[in-house]
Amino acid sequence: MSPSRPAPAVSVDIVLLTLGDTGLQVALHRRDHAPCQHQLALPGGYVHVDEDDSCEATAKRVLRDKTGLEPRYLEQLRTFAGPRRDPRGWSVAVSHVALIPLQQLRDAGDGVFHFYDVDQLPELAFDHAEQVREAVQRVRNKASYSTLPCWLLPERFTLTQLQHTYEQIFGETVSRGTFRSRLGIKVADAKPGEYADEAALLEATEEFLGGKQRPARLFRINRLSLFKRARW
Amino acid sequence: MSPSRPAPAVSVDIVLLTLGDTGLQVALHRRDHAPCQHQLALPGGYVHVDEDDSCEATAKRVLRDKTGLEPRYLEQLRTFAGPRRDPRGWSVAVSHVALIPLQQLRDAGDGVFHFYDVDQLPELAFDHAEQVREAVQRVRNKASYSTLPCWLLPERFTLTQLQHTYEQIFGETVSRGTFRSRLGIKVADAKPGEYADEAALLEATEEFLGGKQRPARLFRINRLSLFKRARW
Repeated sequence: MSPSRPAPAVSVDIVLLTLGDTGLQVALHRRDHAPCQHQLALPGGYVHVDEDDSCEATAKRVLRDKTGLEPRYLEQLRTFAGPRRDPRGWSVAVSHVALIPLQQLRDAGDGVFHFYDVDQLPELAFDHAEQVREAVQRVRNKASYSTLPCWLLPERFTLTQLQHTYEQIFGETVSRGTFRSRLGIKVADAKPGEYADEAALLEATEEFLGGKQRPARLFRINRLSLFKRARW
Repeated sequence: MSPSRPAPAVSVDIVLLTLGDTGLQVALHRRDHAPCQHQLALPGGYVHVDEDDSCEATAKRVLRDKTGLEPRYLEQLRTFAGPRRDPRGWSVAVSHVALIPLQQLRDAGDGVFHFYDVDQLPELAFDHAEQVREAVQRVRNKASYSTLPCWLLPERFTLTQLQHTYEQIFGETVSRGTFRSRLGIKVADAKPGEYADEAALLEATEEFLGGKQRPARLFRINRLSLFKRARW
């Protein structure tokens, strides 16, 4: 039995976050048609029922079409719905958060997006400002007890880069000791294939970053994991 | 510009949880028409674009129509969507979690629902079993750092009833001392209008429960609040 009433339009919006020089930034584009023409907005698009296997697939298709990239981290945020969020009528936007390293975004889709500090948002179309606020809250919250920030870094990173990423997400510095103790980092001198942390998440690679003085070993991480310890 | 493709059907499902004698239970009903006729399913219904102001409004309307009740706690869980979850075609279900005290449900909608232990689920229609699993995980997780379990109790409750509620959600007993320390309970002998806890959440009322021996004062809570302390 199909519904006898008209169905709402269903789209997927993506809060695409990256780490710029000044901290967490969101990727926005200027809309080239009505409604909200010329306003800044999140990337997004309608679900294509003949193409997409899920809302996550819609999100990936939209990002692929715009940037050629697949985000390493993609998560459903929340669904925003109602009669007034879009002037075209009752609409449902299944909002997602995606994390992509800035360099990857710059290489792939130069000029497609404008990047804005998440704590200094300009005016946005529809309810996109609310979506960004919720996404940032989610990312900061999850960063406080998980390895989520790794997905804002290139695939291989130094422990110092990882510390800076956490600091930029929270907007505050932490001591090297506090940082390493939270992540359970015990063996920063891990050898290739060994793990630097108790939870066996940070795997040492054979590569180094930096000059002759004190080159820093690069690590990689394979999955999102929650800390067993208390929050940050 | 409307989408040129057909829009998916949009419904709202509700994982209605309550606390029975054996612990956390979910309210299910037997579907009286196809698809999945005669199977157990969550309450739910299509969004009525001419009536509902939001998906939360759809959830409330569906529960009101079935039970006459408004849940004291209602939260969006996650959106389940895709071409195969419903044989009628591409569909979007915005899933919600609702908490209602058992007595209230029994008084209002006797016979509408069957109650099942969340850890011993029968076979359910569509992806409803997955929705229940996620909802229970969310509730247990939130219960570990918030006052969420209060919404499974009547409006006024004793501190012992509250402790039992936490124990039933987690399926394990805790000592009275551990429980009270987690909730920051300092003054269980609070007088009417005073608060029993540090966070000023548990307000003492003028009413008591129990016989002449040691009547227990009833408390009430006004809002969902997170603990400042570490997790359970």
